[in-house]
Order: sequence, then structure tokens, then C-alpha cells
Amino acid sequence: MAQDTGRTLMSYCPDIKVLDCTLRDGGLVNNFRFTDTFVKNLYEANKKAGVDYMEFGYKASKEIFDVNEFGKWKFCDEESIREIVGDNNSDLKISVMSDVGRTDYKNDIIDRKDSVIDMIRTATYIHQIPTAIEMIEDAKVKGYETTVNVMAVSKVNESDLKAGLELLAGSGVDTIYLVDSFGAFYPEQIERLADLYLEVAAKSGKEIGIHAHNNQQLAFANTIQALRQGVSYLDATVSGMGRGAGNCFLESLLAFLKNPKYNLIPVMEFIEKDMLQLKKDGAVWGYDLPYLMTGVLNSHPSSAIKFIKEGREDYRNFYQELLEIE
Amino acid sequence: MAQDTGRTLMSYCPDIKVLDCTLRDGGLVNNFRFTDTFVKNLYEANKKAGVDYMEFGYKASKEIFDVNEFGKWKFCDEESIREIVGDNNSDLKISVMSDVGRTDYKNDIIDRKDSVIDMIRTATYIHQIPTAIEMIEDAKVKGYETTVNVMAVSKVNESDLKAGLELLAGSGVDTIYLVDSFGAFYPEQIERLADLYLEVAAKSGKEIGIHAHNNQQLAFANTIQALRQGVSYLDATVSGMGRGAGNCFLESLLAFLKNPKYNLIPVMEFIEKDMLQLKKDGAVWGYDLPYLMTGVLNSHPSSAIKFIKEGREDYRNFYQELLEIE
Repeated sequence: MAQDTGRTLMSYCPDIKVLDCTLRDGGLVNNFRFTDTFVKNLYEANKKAGVDYMEFGYKASKEIFDVNEFGKWKFCDEESIREIVGDNNSDLKISVMSDVGRTDYKNDIIDRKDSVIDMIRTATYIHQIPTAIEMIEDAKVKGYETTVNVMAVSKVNESDLKAGLELLAGSGVDTIYLVDSFGAFYPEQIERLADLYLEVAAKSGKEIGIHAHNNQQLAFANTIQALRQGVSYLDATVSGMGRGAGNCFLESLLAFLKNPKYNLIPVMEFIEKDMLQLKKDGAVWGYDLPYLMTGVLNSHPSSAIKFIKEGREDYRNFYQELLEIE
Repeated sequence: MAQDTGRTLMSYCPDIKVLDCTLRDGGLVNNFRFTDTFVKNLYEANKKAGVDYMEFGYKASKEIFDVNEFGKWKFCDEESIREIVGDNNSDLKISVMSDVGRTDYKNDIIDRKDSVIDMIRTATYIHQIPTAIEMIEDAKVKGYETTVNVMAVSKVNESDLKAGLELLAGSGVDTIYLVDSFGAFYPEQIERLADLYLEVAAKSGKEIGIHAHNNQQLAFANTIQALRQGVSYLDATVSGMGRGAGNCFLESLLAFLKNPKYNLIPVMEFIEKDMLQLKKDGAVWGYDLPYLMTGVLNSHPSSAIKFIKEGREDYRNFYQELLEIE
């Protein structure tokens, strides 16, 4: 049963934090090759819109990834961020994502007192949680706010998920994210899962977040379902920009939220001035039939991304191919 | 509070009826100018997919509308439908929509025994309900299944809506539709409204239907929310084709439903062979930022349709214009 948080459509929810991850999840669309103007304008739009956190990208290891193959937001060097935000004298906090096994966190994440970054988000699969906790504790010691984003939970059985959440409950992490990596969940499932995560949060004093994908055009619906259950940290991207079918639209979310601090107009202006151009320049993401198929079949979107890139339109064959690898 | 219908994601719901209104709502996109091949292939796809009803279009009055300005599915002459379906020896039932004030129903709707049409759907605004009831009773006497689709209820206050529903409860109509004409409702509101409609249904032995629009990318989410409450008649269109932001995607709905009779593959084939071409030929519909704005502001989508047709991209100005006419 749903917890009755007493949250209705008209509620003012002071615990809500909106996190814009356009550069990070959107960077997966264009290999993080955003112009400085785009990034600066997004930063200004987020500040004016009352967004709580802006995620600049990944803290990927340069030992593992070639700096010539990706834009700078794959690596998020301190100086790259500072070129955009200076000392970030604003209420907008800055986050970066740190992938288990792909981040040289001991060297590349410096003390918070020397950084403009406020929050480290650790992305992990369920079996990597012990490593993730080591990374989280490292970030805590360095002074950061921390989240853990447990990916692909639609592939994880409930007992394992509970065990993983218990481990995280015992860690120093501040916020645990419910992540629908494959866009496989319906709102009814988000309701149940959010309640499970919130149960852990209630016992351990942690917050819960939601990161949704739009394979079934449910990213926004799933985000507001989670919000209704009591989830506080809400991920979104401008125009839903993100891998494959993309994410929850920031503009939908800001239009929905009743907190007076949020303002839709700067995001509309950003879309008009910067996002339309990015699309015209060839960046492709968003709902399409192949993503519905991988979502429904609870599969990684990579095959659908390939199908679309190749300009294929034989949906029926593609569906058969997906059924065969299931 | 939600009624507990006991319906979960895994439920088999024998009362569910899927109604494909691609030609009818989609006809508003292209003035009902579909090729016969398109219509025939859609009819075959719906039969194979296990769809319960296919709506061919409107029964518009030729006294009011010029037959040269619209394709034939604006008028749905008996012989036009028969050219596609013969005597329709199949389990797929056929419906047409009859608009209050725009239909010469006394003359243009013949006895069911002489027609291939199975169901007449009467579309009405709240203040036209007495006229709608006259049309419904006429269709009942002629032997048809009947629905009433009360439009734009997001503009109607709750007391008036209840009074309207009570009137309909006393009529001979079989099914009452909850219609989100402006794509203004969130799932939480659909939950409450569906419960209100179902309360009337429980007292009067009627079924309830849902017709959603995709302005906020919530058409599918709202449809499955209504289904969960106990709503039985579910409207959808292939690729969401419909006025403005369009409708609930038939492919999403069929992928979701657990009733073994439904089959997604024929719809995929139809998209591949026919729907892609229609799009390439210039038909435009589907989610876009201006539709989010009219949805959020609970306005008719016509201004957003015009904005997009004119190729405008000044979203901020458009939003200001909308706020001024509110």
C-alpha cells in the first residue's frame, strides 16, 4: 500500500530538490560535446529557474577514457567547471557523477573546500554496492553531499534489492536514488518501489531520489508518482535530453511543481535559444517505437539506439530480434 | 480515495475494450484525407491486434460542412465504410462519432440492422447534455450501442459535472466517457474523476471510458491510471495520431495490457508500412512545448497548433500571449 504522505497536487513540498542532469545524461547523446555558450546559458537558466542542483557531467578516469574522444564534461575537471561558474556564488548547487569502476576518485575528487562541486553522485550496479560505499565514504570524508544511484533495478530481484538497500542504509550516503535505467517501470511499480526505498529512508534518515527514462513516455508520470509517495530528489533534463528515449522533461516538472521558487520561463528561453539549435545540429533523442520495445522488454536501450542510428524502420524484425536475445 | 478494484499490473480484465480512434481524432490532423489503402490496412491491423472497436470518423452533417473541404471520414457514409469492411464479418466492432449540433442524426443515422456500424458515440459539451440525450435515445431506438463523450471537463466545476453525470445516469446510454480534451489532467486528478464517474456507473449499470490527450506526455499514464480505477473503455490511436499533441498511443496500450487477445505485432507492421509514410507526407502531431503550455494552462490547443503551423519558435512570447488570454 502507498504510504500516505498527505502530498496532493496542491501541496507545497519544501523537501523537494530538482536536479538538472542535461549535461550528464544528455552528454551520452553527443559524447559530451557541448559548446561553452550552451553550458553557460544552461547554468544561467537553471539559476533563474530555481533549480536546486545542476549536474555538469561525469568524473571519468582519463586512464580509462581517451580525452580526445569525448567533450570535457565526461571528465569535469575543476577548472572546466570554474570557467563556467567562477566560484558559483549562487543558490544553485553543482553535482558530478562518479561511476563505479570508471572513476579515479581517490585522485580526481579533491576536497570540497577546494572545489566548486557540492555533491558527488555515485552510480552503481547492485553487485558493485560494496565498492560504491567505499567511494561514498571517500566523498563524505572530503566534505561532499553524496547520493548513490543504483542502476538497472528493473533487472534485480526484490530480495537482492532489499539487501542492497540495507547495505546503503548503513553507509554514510545522504540520498538513495531509484533509477529506472531501461524505462521499464509503470507508475504502479514506481509506487511500490518508492515505498520500499522510503521505508529504508525512514529508518536511516536518508532522502530518496528518482531518475526516470522515457521509453514508454512515462518518465514524467513516474517522477510525479514517486514525488507523491514522498520522494524528494527529482532528476530531469531540458527537453528530456538523455540517452535513447531520454529523461523526465524539466519543463514538465517545473510546470507541475507548486513551490513558488520554481520558474518555467528561463527554461523556455533556453530551449528557444540553445536547445533547438542543438537539435538542428543533429543531436537525436526522445521517445520512438524501438525504445518502447526495449522498455517493455526491460532491455538496455543500446540496440534501439543502433537501430535508429542505422536509419532502419523494420520495427517488426527488430522486435523479433529483441525477443530472441531475451 | 481510490476505489480498490483489485486491478494490478498483472490482472486479466475481461471488461476491457480498446477503441482505436486513429481515423477520427487523427482525421482532425489531415482533414480526414486518408487513402483507402491506409484505412484498409488499419482495419486489418486492428482485427489482427484484437482491438475491440475501430472508429471510422464523424457523422458530420453535409448541410453544415462542405464535402469538398474534407475527406470522406468526416461524414462516414454507409457505403464508404462498406467499401472497406464489406459486411464486417469479424469481431472488430465499428463506431462513428456524432457531434451535438453538427450531425443530422435523424436522417444520417439509419437503423442498425441496415448498417455495418455497431456503436454511436455522442460528443457533447456539458451544457448540451439534454440534446445529447435526445441523440443517444434516437441511436438506442435504432438499435445501436451508445457512448457519450463529455468534452472539456477540465473547464467544468465539480457540481455541474455531478449534475451532468446524474442526467446521463438516467439516460439509456451504455458508456460514459471521461474526456481530457486539453490534456490538462494529472494522473492524480484522473484517479479522482474516474472514481466519480465509476460511482455513477455503479449506481446505474453503465460502463466508463477514458479518452486522453498527450499535451503533458501523460495520455498513456492517465489511461492506465483510469484503467486501474476500474474504467473499461480505453481510447487510443496508432502512434498517438490526433489533434495537437495527440492521444494515448495504441502500441503503448497493447504492450501494457495483459489480456491474451491483444497482439502488438500487427500494429508495428502498420506503423512500418503506412504510418511512417503518412508522417513523411507531412502530417504533424505529437508532444511539443507549446502543447505543454496549453495543457498546463487548461486551454484549447488551437493556439498551439497555429503557433507550430506558422513555424514560430518564440516560446516565451507564446507563453505570455497565453497568460494574457487566460
